[in-house]
Amino acid sequence: MEGLTVSKQISVVMGSISDWDTMSAATEMLASFGIKFEKKVISAHRMPAEMFDFAQKSAERGIKVIIAGAGGAAHLPGMIAANTTLPVIGVPVQSHALNGMDSLLSIVQMPAGVPVATTAIGKAGAKNAALLAVEILAIGQPELNEKLQCFRREQHAAAVKSGDQLD
Amino acid sequence: MEGLTVSKQISVVMGSISDWDTMSAATEMLASFGIKFEKKVISAHRMPAEMFDFAQKSAERGIKVIIAGAGGAAHLPGMIAANTTLPVIGVPVQSHALNGMDSLLSIVQMPAGVPVATTAIGKAGAKNAALLAVEILAIGQPELNEKLQCFRREQHAAAVKSGDQLD
Amino acid sequence: MEGLTVSKQISVVMGSISDWDTMSAATEMLASFGIKFEKKVISAHRMPAEMFDFAQKSAERGIKVIIAGAGGAAHLPGMIAANTTLPVIGVPVQSHALNGMDSLLSIVQMPAGVPVATTAIGKAGAKNAALLAVEILAIGQPELNEKLQCFRREQHAAAVKSGDQLD
Amino acid sequence: MEGLTVSKQISVVMGSISDWDTMSAATEMLASFGIKFEKKVISAHRMPAEMFDFAQKSAERGIKVIIAGAGGAAHLPGMIAANTTLPVIGVPVQSHALNGMDSLLSIVQMPAGVPVATTAIGKAGAKNAALLAVEILAIGQPELNEKLQCFRREQHAAAVKSGDQLD
Amino acid sequence: MEGLTVSKQISVVMGSISDWDTMSAATEMLASFGIKFEKKVISAHRMPAEMFDFAQKSAERGIKVIIAGAGGAAHLPGMIAANTTLPVIGVPVQSHALNGMDSLLSIVQMPAGVPVATTAIGKAGAKNAALLAVEILAIGQPELNEKLQCFRREQHAAAVKSGDQLD
Amino acid sequence: MEGLTVSKQISVVMGSISDWDTMSAATEMLASFGIKFEKKVISAHRMPAEMFDFAQKSAERGIKVIIAGAGGAAHLPGMIAANTTLPVIGVPVQSHALNGMDSLLSIVQMPAGVPVATTAIGKAGAKNAALLAVEILAIGQPELNEKLQCFRREQHAAAVKSGDQLD
Amino acid sequence: MEGLTVSKQISVVMGSISDWDTMSAATEMLASFGIKFEKKVISAHRMPAEMFDFAQKSAERGIKVIIAGAGGAAHLPGMIAANTTLPVIGVPVQSHALNGMDSLLSIVQMPAGVPVATTAIGKAGAKNAALLAVEILAIGQPELNEKLQCFRREQHAAAVKSGDQLD
Amino acid sequence: MEGLTVSKQISVVMGSISDWDTMSAATEMLASFGIKFEKKVISAHRMPAEMFDFAQKSAERGIKVIIAGAGGAAHLPGMIAANTTLPVIGVPVQSHALNGMDSLLSIVQMPAGVPVATTAIGKAGAKNAALLAVEILAIGQPELNEKLQCFRREQHAAAVKSGDQLD
Repeated sequence: MEGLTVSKQISVVMGSISDWDTMSAATEMLASFGIKFEKKVISAHRMPAEMFDFAQKSAERGIKVIIAGAGGAAHLPGMIAANTTLPVIGVPVQSHALNGMDSLLSIVQMPAGVPVATTAIGKAGAKNAALLAVEILAIGQPELNEKLQCFRREQHAAAVKSGDQLD
Repeated sequence: MEGLTVSKQISVVMGSISDWDTMSAATEMLASFGIKFEKKVISAHRMPAEMFDFAQKSAERGIKVIIAGAGGAAHLPGMIAANTTLPVIGVPVQSHALNGMDSLLSIVQMPAGVPVATTAIGKAGAKNAALLAVEILAIGQPELNEKLQCFRREQHAAAVKSGDQLD
Repeated sequence: MEGLTVSKQISVVMGSISDWDTMSAATEMLASFGIKFEKKVISAHRMPAEMFDFAQKSAERGIKVIIAGAGGAAHLPGMIAANTTLPVIGVPVQSHALNGMDSLLSIVQMPAGVPVATTAIGKAGAKNAALLAVEILAIGQPELNEKLQCFRREQHAAAVKSGDQLD
Repeated sequence: MEGLTVSKQISVVMGSISDWDTMSAATEMLASFGIKFEKKVISAHRMPAEMFDFAQKSAERGIKVIIAGAGGAAHLPGMIAANTTLPVIGVPVQSHALNGMDSLLSIVQMPAGVPVATTAIGKAGAKNAALLAVEILAIGQPELNEKLQCFRREQHAAAVKSGDQLD
Repeated sequence: MEGLTVSKQISVVMGSISDWDTMSAATEMLASFGIKFEKKVISAHRMPAEMFDFAQKSAERGIKVIIAGAGGAAHLPGMIAANTTLPVIGVPVQSHALNGMDSLLSIVQMPAGVPVATTAIGKAGAKNAALLAVEILAIGQPELNEKLQCFRREQHAAAVKSGDQLD
Repeated sequence: MEGLTVSKQISVVMGSISDWDTMSAATEMLASFGIKFEKKVISAHRMPAEMFDFAQKSAERGIKVIIAGAGGAAHLPGMIAANTTLPVIGVPVQSHALNGMDSLLSIVQMPAGVPVATTAIGKAGAKNAALLAVEILAIGQPELNEKLQCFRREQHAAAVKSGDQLD
Repeated sequence: MEGLTVSKQISVVMGSISDWDTMSAATEMLASFGIKFEKKVISAHRMPAEMFDFAQKSAERGIKVIIAGAGGAAHLPGMIAANTTLPVIGVPVQSHALNGMDSLLSIVQMPAGVPVATTAIGKAGAKNAALLAVEILAIGQPELNEKLQCFRREQHAAAVKSGDQLD
Repeated sequence: MEGLTVSKQISVVMGSISDWDTMSAATEMLASFGIKFEKKVISAHRMPAEMFDFAQKSAERGIKVIIAGAGGAAHLPGMIAANTTLPVIGVPVQSHALNGMDSLLSIVQMPAGVPVATTAIGKAGAKNAALLAVEILAIGQPELNEKLQCFRREQHAAAVKSGDQLD
């Protein structure tokens, strides 16, 4: 586990090392924005004590937003959210049998009182979780907002440019 | 909350008082077998510390089987199971929008390593959770097995008798 | 449409006046936190120009977070997100035929690059959208964090207290 | 982007260049009927301004029918339809996790007032979108109707002929 | 069955008289545009000969667009489309057990070669089927296009106006 | 198309030659029982006239049971059933995007009045369609009943024997 | 239980007396054809011995076709089919939580070797099960075939007549 | 079939030899705990008499818990449960067309009165079925409880350790 310093604003956690293939899309996106982040495997079911400890202490460690990915009966995002008032973003990892529909419903259908900001199933959701975290940070950090505008412009240009392949 | 004595073998918990309409079908079934039980509201999301404490101390309190009902993103059964090696039976409570499909998938699709014995959505599942708990207790308590045989015979007789209504 | 002043930090919009029954749960939650908000009907399909204008100008009007509720082929949250880099929270309103599964998938399955923070179908999702917005604002407003802690404590106490009804 | 002349009656657009594998089935079908068409990548989420502009100006450019393909939270067909009164045909592109069920519901479940003519998920839907466009054009162009009759006869003959492979 | 004259441009058919509650939303919309239409019960399964006859002769009777509504294993739109090259718009009627998901899939998942333009489940779909038919007719009838523009403006105004109810 | 003689009791039809991979499991099963059968491609959508003709004349040609396989918006079994009072068995062929759920619902959800005997999605369903046809014929042909008993005994023996592979 | 005589050709069984509301639609249809039938409650789960006995002895009692209705985890039709080579028709009864989707899949997805002829969820399926049974009997009983033709003609006439209500 | 001695406490059965790939995950887990078990192919549909016999005699043979895996219309767990009061754990095997959703619903949606303890679809479910059986046995066997604690500790350590791969 990497060193934890207060300068890391985002924590990216996942319920299993097998989720890393999906969740690395989030960390790559954060890195592209120059955001300092930590990344951890924290299993709600196999490491419940660490999970509680992590959730309860993230705020005092200086973490601003938590991104949590999990698949199947995906309890990690919701259980972290139950133990912190930091914004928690949940990424449904695509599961083997049910293609992530179980992951999605386990994460998004939270009862009133404990919110989880849910994104799409799989890598698109992981990337968007990172972007959402940047958008949240950008409220208090104008320079991040400029980077977001730049990201959107580049994305726009790439979409426009891709049309050339039709010819 | 009722007094907890070691003589109570089954704990029936639910994520919200609104689940009681479903879960009372479990306690009534247990009562009909003369099983001593406790019943509690323990919300995984709103009472996480109590939930952990409950799960970790149930065995030493003499509880043998835990029945946990929850709806929507139903994390209670799985998170209890993550904190005990007692058998945990999960009852998917029928949810408002998705009719309990979210509850079912959130409970049954547990990852390898932390089992939850899942029953049907709604009251039928609550009743069967109680019966399953009795079956488990009956392994070491022959008199319970006799009661189960009796229950099955009565159930059989009622089913046979119900056919008279067709005439 | 109510007056728009820079002091309003949250904008709650909905695709149809028929969504108000759901989305009022968001505004009530915001009000309970003392958050200033605006509320609007902005239909992506029937008011597309207003929707674009709203999305593009929200940031400069001082809005910090947008909450958007819609049902069926629910394009409002995603299309607002396409036109702003403010955090957008999407609430799937329960639809008539498909119980909100169409609303949920239309909102949550956004492609990489344009995130929408999705909450649960229906009123629970509307309440959690408000809480999520408060959590986001609280990053830069410590007094809001205290209110959140208080909300959690009260919610915890109410859950604990509800167990008395089992006796 | 290819030149736009008034002689092009059909516009085939897609939300991403990755949809081209599906949508090329539409353009091939149009070409087989000798219909002049344009083809474009127009992302609702990454090119919203172009999307609005495209939708609002298609009619004056002489376009008669718009075919729009998209996947996942597929907002392109509905948002184009919100900005034009030309007939818009939506093609749900098969998505990665949910096999196009998300694409289908995002396109077909439009609210009253803004119609999208939806076809099947994937290439069959793309081909049928083209055929539907030809059927629409054929109302005012009798020679197209003859081509449609011919297409149906050939399709019929091929189906009959295919039975020989059973022997 | 009402008299059939060549001046009727739209035919609205339904598989059962029980679909009329849904499909009347289509005829009311057509009437509001001053479009002449016929309406019929034609069951694919109970009136197959009439269904074939209807489909094959609609074009020569001057019908321009066919709107067909059906529920459950909804074969009517597709089987009409198999027997005509007129544009056929299919409306999935909400079914009892499966809420119209069966109707939707039976109508929209047509194989390549025989298109059906599918709209949303239920009354919204019926209204949009009518609007789609008007859009198709409007290609060759400029005065209809003006009515469509007017409809959109009124719809826009009503949506804007509805926001007043939030105050 | 093979010669049709009155001695053929079963007709196996499919909507597309691509269904043959599935439906050949039915003809192989019929052949193993020594049942004479015919096999045809009859597309409800591309060969509607032949489909009607086939359905209406099957009884007089001596056909006793019709087995019809189709995928997607699978109208073939139901439309044949609409044109004959012979027992029609429908086989849902596994479709590309939705795995045969569309095929299943399109076949099984027939309205009251026109029955289709539906079997499982894919090859298991094709085999069972053949067995069901044999069971139906066996009512009037005692020697077929003996073959069915023999088939069951062999199937039983194979299942028992397969357990040896566990050692 | 009513007297069993060899003259009864159809046996209508159901897993619970609560299924009678659905299954009475089958017996009424049989009665309208003058078919002699028996009707029974036979629960696969609560009366397994009777179920086996029933299935194994139905043929020798002169039963020709068995109609079995059940809901939820509906094992009755398949388990009867496992113990007889008579044609077994399964009717999925609409269940409380999942609207009969569980009933349908439990009945229709039988493995190769043991067929169940499945009809639609609910009363339409019950009626069609009866009609399918009549169609099967009609193979060897020409007078039944005439009644079926008459039924179809009356059904056709009623459908045609129903169109008058549109005026 | 292997020799049956009273010392075997767990019986692992499966509906088809093709389920062995899944169910071997259960027997490997049991073996890792030093639990004596038997394993059998018992098809509910192809070996119904053996299935009944097995279910009715398991208790007297000293079996304490039955683990039953099956796919599709998976009747094995429920039918065994109907014939014994031993705890029955059902494992939904992933099916070909519907990915195990049919297996899951066929197993979990049991009516009140006959419980089946259901685990996740596929190998995770098979492993958890074994763990659940061990948890049940551990109620009366303290040494098993120690092994379970050890298993959890090792699982915990492996999860913690897996995080190293992120660096």
